[in-house]
Amino acid sequence: MSRWEPNARGRIEEAALELYGERGFEQTTVAEIAKRAGLTERTFFRHYADKREVLFAGSRALEQFIVDALTRIPDSTAPIDAVGTALEATADLFRERRPHSLRRQAVIAAHPELQERELIKLASLSAALAETLRRRGVGDPAASLTAEAGTAVFKVAFERWIGGSGHQDLSELIRDSLAELKAVTAGARPD
Amino acid sequence: MSRWEPNARGRIEEAALELYGERGFEQTTVAEIAKRAGLTERTFFRHYADKREVLFAGSRALEQFIVDALTRIPDSTAPIDAVGTALEATADLFRERRPHSLRRQAVIAAHPELQERELIKLASLSAALAETLRRRGVGDPAASLTAEAGTAVFKVAFERWIGGSGHQDLSELIRDSLAELKAVTAGARPD
Repeated sequence: MSRWEPNARGRIEEAALELYGERGFEQTTVAEIAKRAGLTERTFFRHYADKREVLFAGSRALEQFIVDALTRIPDSTAPIDAVGTALEATADLFRERRPHSLRRQAVIAAHPELQERELIKLASLSAALAETLRRRGVGDPAASLTAEAGTAVFKVAFERWIGGSGHQDLSELIRDSLAELKAVTAGARPD
Repeated sequence: MSRWEPNARGRIEEAALELYGERGFEQTTVAEIAKRAGLTERTFFRHYADKREVLFAGSRALEQFIVDALTRIPDSTAPIDAVGTALEATADLFRERRPHSLRRQAVIAAHPELQERELIKLASLSAALAETLRRRGVGDPAASLTAEAGTAVFKVAFERWIGGSGHQDLSELIRDSLAELKAVTAGARPD
């Protein structure tokens, strides 16, 4: 029973999101997810620790992707702009997956304990960005504040991307949000 | 048994922090906290839902204090500076309580589930600030970004206040952190 199942992770993720949407996150069991995916429970547990993990397994990979992108940007770039560019690079990961992201966000929005998990992932991203900036020679509190600012920009841009019509690319929304953050911290007043 | 217990909340809080420090948060029971405070368990539960609540009951009051302070600042002040001033006002609440805050922070730092709770309280503060800014006529995403920026400033300044020697007042650290955030978002580079 250890034969290779083609795209097991993707099939589990798809089946889980369908079931969470149809009957709710609490009401869905791992057995049902595995069945819908045409896999065994054993295969499920080879890929995910539990049904919550299906929603959050991508967050660690996303964090690493952003850190790697930031590491590649020349030190001559101002830290806040380096962070902005690294965040913009994530748009390539999300572009084809907006329907998936919409369904995932709907499940999370309906469950406070999943929202908490999302906050923890954002705090982890902020800590990873701060650490990467320190390695680039940025001191504290500048490193922490730049990382927090970048994380806020990503959070706000992602919410606008999910909540919007889908016509604006995530990279454009990240660029806009960073520009807006620069404006508000420079003391811009409401029109 | 409904007689009034003078300063029951303060006595419970003090006893709880002592015990959490001495034997750890998990190992401490409500019965032990009540006993150390010279009160009954029944009195404990009149004031707090559980032993975790003793650490976080002040967060809601703090959020309301900041929102009230922000509401009183004239609309002519730039939103980011209004938020900064409202946050600075909290220094009056914390000034005499630094030893208490240090002990509380040590307990939280030792327990991931308490850190998660702290993140939720910060997210709640950010949402409340954004809502207050919208009532002042600030649109989105400016309101969300200003609120996130203010919350980041408060978080970083509070960590510096707790981690420092105590010679710098929290209000000064909030002012410094906001100035630093303005510098980094304006594209400041490491020295």
